[in-house]
Amino acid sequence: MPERLLARVDSPKALRALDEALLPPLCEALRQEIIHACGLVGGHLGASLGAVELIVALHRVFKSPVDRLVFDVGHQAYAHKLLTGRRLDTLRQAGGVAPFLDPAESEHDAFAAGHACTAVSAALGILEAKRLGGEPGQVVAVLGDGALTGGQSFEGLANAGHGPLPLKVVLNDNGMSISANVGAVAHLLRTGGARAFFEALGFVYLGPVDGHDLKALLAAFGEARRCAKPVLVHAVTQKGRGFEPAEADPHTRGHAMGPWELRDGKLVRARSRATFSDAFAAALERRMAVDPKVVAVTPAMIEGSSLAAVKARFPARVHDVGIAEQHAVTFAAGLAHAGAKPVVCIYSTFLQRAYDQLVHDVALPRLPVVFAVDRAGLVGADGATHQGAYDVGLLRALPGVTLLGALFGEELDSLLETALAAGGPAAIRFPRGTLPDLPAGVALEAGVVSGARWLKRVAAPELTFVALGPVALAALEASAAHPTWAVLDARFAAPLDEAALLEAARGAVVTVEEGTERGGLGSAVLELFARRGVRPPVRVAGLPGDRFIRHGEARAQRAELGLDARGLERLALEVLG
Amino acid sequence: MPERLLARVDSPKALRALDEALLPPLCEALRQEIIHACGLVGGHLGASLGAVELIVALHRVFKSPVDRLVFDVGHQAYAHKLLTGRRLDTLRQAGGVAPFLDPAESEHDAFAAGHACTAVSAALGILEAKRLGGEPGQVVAVLGDGALTGGQSFEGLANAGHGPLPLKVVLNDNGMSISANVGAVAHLLRTGGARAFFEALGFVYLGPVDGHDLKALLAAFGEARRCAKPVLVHAVTQKGRGFEPAEADPHTRGHAMGPWELRDGKLVRARSRATFSDAFAAALERRMAVDPKVVAVTPAMIEGSSLAAVKARFPARVHDVGIAEQHAVTFAAGLAHAGAKPVVCIYSTFLQRAYDQLVHDVALPRLPVVFAVDRAGLVGADGATHQGAYDVGLLRALPGVTLLGALFGEELDSLLETALAAGGPAAIRFPRGTLPDLPAGVALEAGVVSGARWLKRVAAPELTFVALGPVALAALEASAAHPTWAVLDARFAAPLDEAALLEAARGAVVTVEEGTERGGLGSAVLELFARRGVRPPVRVAGLPGDRFIRHGEARAQRAELGLDARGLERLALEVLG
Repeated sequence: MPERLLARVDSPKALRALDEALLPPLCEALRQEIIHACGLVGGHLGASLGAVELIVALHRVFKSPVDRLVFDVGHQAYAHKLLTGRRLDTLRQAGGVAPFLDPAESEHDAFAAGHACTAVSAALGILEAKRLGGEPGQVVAVLGDGALTGGQSFEGLANAGHGPLPLKVVLNDNGMSISANVGAVAHLLRTGGARAFFEALGFVYLGPVDGHDLKALLAAFGEARRCAKPVLVHAVTQKGRGFEPAEADPHTRGHAMGPWELRDGKLVRARSRATFSDAFAAALERRMAVDPKVVAVTPAMIEGSSLAAVKARFPARVHDVGIAEQHAVTFAAGLAHAGAKPVVCIYSTFLQRAYDQLVHDVALPRLPVVFAVDRAGLVGADGATHQGAYDVGLLRALPGVTLLGALFGEELDSLLETALAAGGPAAIRFPRGTLPDLPAGVALEAGVVSGARWLKRVAAPELTFVALGPVALAALEASAAHPTWAVLDARFAAPLDEAALLEAARGAVVTVEEGTERGGLGSAVLELFARRGVRPPVRVAGLPGDRFIRHGEARAQRAELGLDARGLERLALEVLG
Repeated sequence: MPERLLARVDSPKALRALDEALLPPLCEALRQEIIHACGLVGGHLGASLGAVELIVALHRVFKSPVDRLVFDVGHQAYAHKLLTGRRLDTLRQAGGVAPFLDPAESEHDAFAAGHACTAVSAALGILEAKRLGGEPGQVVAVLGDGALTGGQSFEGLANAGHGPLPLKVVLNDNGMSISANVGAVAHLLRTGGARAFFEALGFVYLGPVDGHDLKALLAAFGEARRCAKPVLVHAVTQKGRGFEPAEADPHTRGHAMGPWELRDGKLVRARSRATFSDAFAAALERRMAVDPKVVAVTPAMIEGSSLAAVKARFPARVHDVGIAEQHAVTFAAGLAHAGAKPVVCIYSTFLQRAYDQLVHDVALPRLPVVFAVDRAGLVGADGATHQGAYDVGLLRALPGVTLLGALFGEELDSLLETALAAGGPAAIRFPRGTLPDLPAGVALEAGVVSGARWLKRVAAPELTFVALGPVALAALEASAAHPTWAVLDARFAAPLDEAALLEAARGAVVTVEEGTERGGLGSAVLELFARRGVRPPVRVAGLPGDRFIRHGEARAQRAELGLDARGLERLALEVLG
């Protein structure tokens, strides 16, 4: 019966036509389907389980797509996907349902989002365009309390508040970012200060509403719908609601998890291999144990950056500042300026949020802030919004920044030591995913390293692969059958190892990186050769510059993009002939 | 006597030793010196005139450099410069006193800043590092009310509020950003809501204090100094205080102005020629007059982007969102998503603040948002924090972005039409400064343009300059004595005009741009040649990748950097021989 109900309610229109008595069983069916699908394919189930009633009530009261529901991030929106005719069994897989929201997938997805804190800005823009064009319909921004640590949410609220447009904002307050939410706004939400705060920002405040009480939600959204001023509905929800393992551990399992099975009522997951994040966090912890000046800064990524153990051991030296990348970077600059040694653990895609702070507060004063740039390169199931495509170009463009690419987990101690010794801004990029095996014949150095490293050196090479990061191993494999081909691990994207690269330039060169082919390592090598007046044949292999890469399996995507051994061998043969 | 007083008080220590009765004449002397120096050399006098008493009181109560005063931006800090042993008569000039604050210039400049909204983050980092290292001293962040529209200030306040560190924040509230301040925070400051708002954020609130009443300021700062919790002092000041032309027109003259003379008590300024900003705003106004869907968005740069007349004519279609670049870009994305045609007028250096929004909210969904990227290239007296060095690399790296460089003011209508017709994200970059004369023999096209344009075409060129923007005119001059040298105005940095560039590649190529030599137009050309397997000699001329350019006269800097006709001719001869 619950499944039949879900099949019947495949559009907001069908939901609005449903007998009100069937709403609770519908919520139950949605919840079970989310749990079932996430068990099969993994996903961000915690926020979505908490938002089931909220989304059902929203779609009862507001008439999408004439009314627009703008969800922040989309972590919370699986019920919305189900109610708009999508199933979740292909979620996050190549060709399947998108990980977050995507207007190309459904007319009910009002705006794309994979990064937090954009909903209020986008919703206000949509509403203003409706006003300008004389079009009907209301606009609702739905955001989590985690998004309130982010400055952009505040910029949007402050711009909308007291303004002429009747923007609706729904705050889905589950008390959590990915970790427990931090900062003064989390404090005021917990202590009854919400009304005063949002009223100060110029919003009519409705709430707090029990976010699992359908009647209360319908009443509040109805009142918001009729309100002619900017209005905020504050709904209090429980992350992971209805799935015991998620309720019990909302940070990790409750936020997102890979596929699992329930055996005899117990959750069973494949034990995964250690990731680059794990290895970096372990290296950082070892460093913090010997150098009391080293501190870690993370924008709400304690779990994603594997920092929980480091935080447990050094609680006063691991700073989770919330979803606040700009603040994280300038805060780190202040730390460095006053003599501490900050290490900012941040995903490549989120570093984009703090680029000006990197330029203005770190690079310009040449402050020794270290960035651990996680998820650099392809991110697989997280999809287009999360690809780590731009960090090499962003970082190497700035004077005085040292940029390292990690190849093996075993060398992260050495690279961290190198970055800390750089005497100025430094970054270590490493990918999402598990650690590669150390191939036979590769010896690791300890301590501070300098320059590139030959993974395969050849006298008078016919061709050299110049690679950054684990993609060097694909280059090594590509060169296996070719005794005249060399492989150089650039290791430093900035400053480049000019001597090694000029040696490579005696033959043809193929640069290889998991980052955009526009402005990254390949371009740096081309610039060097132009400056030095050498003109070997060069090809740049990287992420394509003319399109974004959607969600899918990273290994398959590498093959498709020619970034596996076969593709690189093909490209090398093409250059040579 | 006032000048003698200034000469005596050349350090915070001397100020603290001064008889309290001499503080009012000292303030008067500071004010006169600021007016006098800005009359000679120009500068940001408005905020500084308003902050004289506030800064005197701060330096009386807090003991710099053990206590750290972190000024946001530094627009307001000329009195601080004077009180720390610097004179203003070389302000903003090559080799002279820096336009903003710079720890390399004085131990009393606690942190460098030229962009707004960073002070709270930096101050909190400095305070945490002091705590970690067991060092003495307090830390004070001083920010204007304009900085409260910026999300990063909020991120910092929310992270500090209710926290364990006794951060001091001084709000210098003059009711102004550069224009009148906007948004809900400005509203609550005007309507008595400040206490509730800052207390909600976890700060002890002191104020409002008359920011020109020394006794009141000294009392409030003294109380803040003793406070063991995060505390905010709200001081109300008058922008331009004490200089009638600035008081009367605080937006424009009161914010910053070039050198002037007072003749017979009247302000006389050299009438300057029209700038690129003026020409773009005029083109935008013409476009808005014929297309009701076109709207303008500016992050607090109505004056800087010459939009005052456009705003006066189309008040409901010019959106000043305050200093809130992230919101500005996503708001524009929302507008575009719902059918409007937004044009975001933004400086190159501030676009850096919204890079993730550009990637995630504009480029990924391929929304037709147009960016007018002002101050692209060298900015002269504004110095290192404001150089427009990175926009080409940032924009061209993103799939589907059309990036145009304007050469003449007369072609901005055509380029705007081209950008609006691009069907996706588009940007037009143009420099700070006055419009160049149209050289004889250059004909302008009307309407939508495509591809590059030969400024000087030669059959079988020995060398081609490939340039973007007005620096093409220097290339044209450099080629004058060389009949076999051609000059191509790339016009499009993305997508590149491949046919024209491959024609150029038959000889040597020198790329020329006012932007970093790392990852910009030059790199794009090198990438194209590598992809096509052509290998002409290439040199990249641009802003140096290994250092930041400080304040100075842009024309002199171009000569120094080899970006004038002489330098380019020299580089071309070097490539050829």
